[in-house]
Order: sequence, then C-alpha cells, then structure tokens
Amino acid sequence: MTTLYTTAEDAEEAFYEAIGRADLDALMATWSDDEEIVCIHPTGQRMDGHAAIRESWRSIFESNPRFSVHIRSKIRWQSLLLCVHSVVETLYLENDRTTHGPMLTTNVFIRGANGWRLLSRHTSAAAEASDGENDDLDTKQHTLH
Amino acid sequence: MTTLYTTAEDAEEAFYEAIGRADLDALMATWSDDEEIVCIHPTGQRMDGHAAIRESWRSIFESNPRFSVHIRSKIRWQSLLLCVHSVVETLYLENDRTTHGPMLTTNVFIRGANGWRLLSRHTSAAAEASDGENDDLDTKQHTLH
Repeated sequence: MTTLYTTAEDAEEAFYEAIGRADLDALMATWSDDEEIVCIHPTGQRMDGHAAIRESWRSIFESNPRFSVHIRSKIRWQSLLLCVHSVVETLYLENDRTTHGPMLTTNVFIRGANGWRLLSRHTSAAAEASDGENDDLDTKQHTLH
Repeated sequence: MTTLYTTAEDAEEAFYEAIGRADLDALMATWSDDEEIVCIHPTGQRMDGHAAIRESWRSIFESNPRFSVHIRSKIRWQSLLLCVHSVVETLYLENDRTTHGPMLTTNVFIRGANGWRLLSRHTSAAAEASDGENDDLDTKQHTLH
C-alpha cells in the first residue's frame, strides 16, 4: 500500500519517523518514484537514485541501529509542485544522553501522483559556532504565488 | 539597474561569474530581494538574509581575491516558480594549477518580479571517494508538469 502524503510536512515527518524506527522500506517510500533523486550525506557522499540511496541508509542503520533525528524547521518555501525546507537537525543516539549535530539540511519535495515526496536531501555538519542552535523554534513559511 | 534573469541558468551563471570577478555587488544582485534567503557554506556556517550573506562573501573575497568556480551541472528540477539545481563545483585558485574540491551544491532559485534569483544555496565538501568527478558532463533536466 502506498501512503499518500498530502503535504511536504507529512512526507518529511514520515521520513524522520522511519529513521527513528530504522525502517528502510518506510524511509524509501518517502522518496519520489517518478523523478531522479539525490541524497547528499554529511560524510560528503552524494547518492543518486533509489538503489544507491537505499544502500547508503541500509549501511547507516546497520552501523547505528537506534538513533533519532529531531528537526527544528527554520525556513520553508512552498510552491505548487516543489517545496524546499531548510532545517537544523539534532541527532540522538540510544543509550547516549549527549546530542550530536547540529546538521544543516536542505530537503526538497515534489508533488506527484502519490502526493508529496522527497526529491533531494542535502545534509552537512554545522560549524560549532553555527547560530542555528540559538535561533528560535518558529517556522518561517512562505507560500509563493 | 536591475538585471532580469529570464532563467535560473542565467542567474546561476551570473552568480559564478561574479565570484570569478570577486564582485560583491554583482554576486548579491543574483539573490532574491523578496524572500528570506539562506546560504550554507562548506565551513558549516549558515547565513540567513542579505546582510549576513553579503558579509560572508565579502570575507571570502578578502581572503581569496582571485578564484573561480566551475560547475558541472548534474540534475535540474524545474517548476513554474521554483527551480533546484544539484551541481558539482571545482575551485580554481589564481597562480595555483591544482584544483580544489569537488564541492557538492544544491542551488534553489525562485521566479519573482525581477526574474529568477537565488533563494537558497547549500554547499559542502565532497568525500574524496565521491563519484562526482567521474560522472559525465551531461545535464539532466526535468521540467515538472
């Protein structure tokens, strides 16, 4: 059964929930089937296409069976067919009270026949001096006309 | 005088040309005036807004008065109001025959009253083992309907 995400936020939430469960199938289901897709990991590796992206996340889950990613949504630009979120991620490892990150992420979503799906994800480590940690939690949302 | 970029490619070309000339005004003119804008540097610093982005590039030009960035465009997703380019950048420093990079970049453009402008730029260093260097130079372009 294919889940239809009616908003980019729904697809994004499902993506991060899948990470929290280390559920590879659920994670891959949040990506677009119709378009070429790109996932850039904080290691500097760029994965193109479903097979490469799936394999990279399989490897991540194998090395880190239990972790979760909390996002503070910062800026969202929304148009009819594309939606871009610029977010700050913090990683929590199970049995480890310290947090990891922050990571800076640009998530791009596309609206297709199956609703909104991930098209591109670009993540890189934030500098220690990043102001991201101190920003307020408000989401800034822009709908383009 | 405001230049009107009729395509995202025009705005992107003007952005990289401005880097090559270390022309801060020209570089900033390729960014959207109407929207909140974000520039994530490979140092892991996230700049929000015109003033912070301008200051970061002023500092970059001050430290590196002459360098150029060549891009190999990889994947482009185009909709009516937003356009996303996933590109691989190589840096050339003047008087230095070696190249630097590759860098992985996600450039997001928006169409407004003044044509296409930069909305978000996310750059991070590619892993040494990135397959980016070996990919062909063809641009993959997708127009969404």
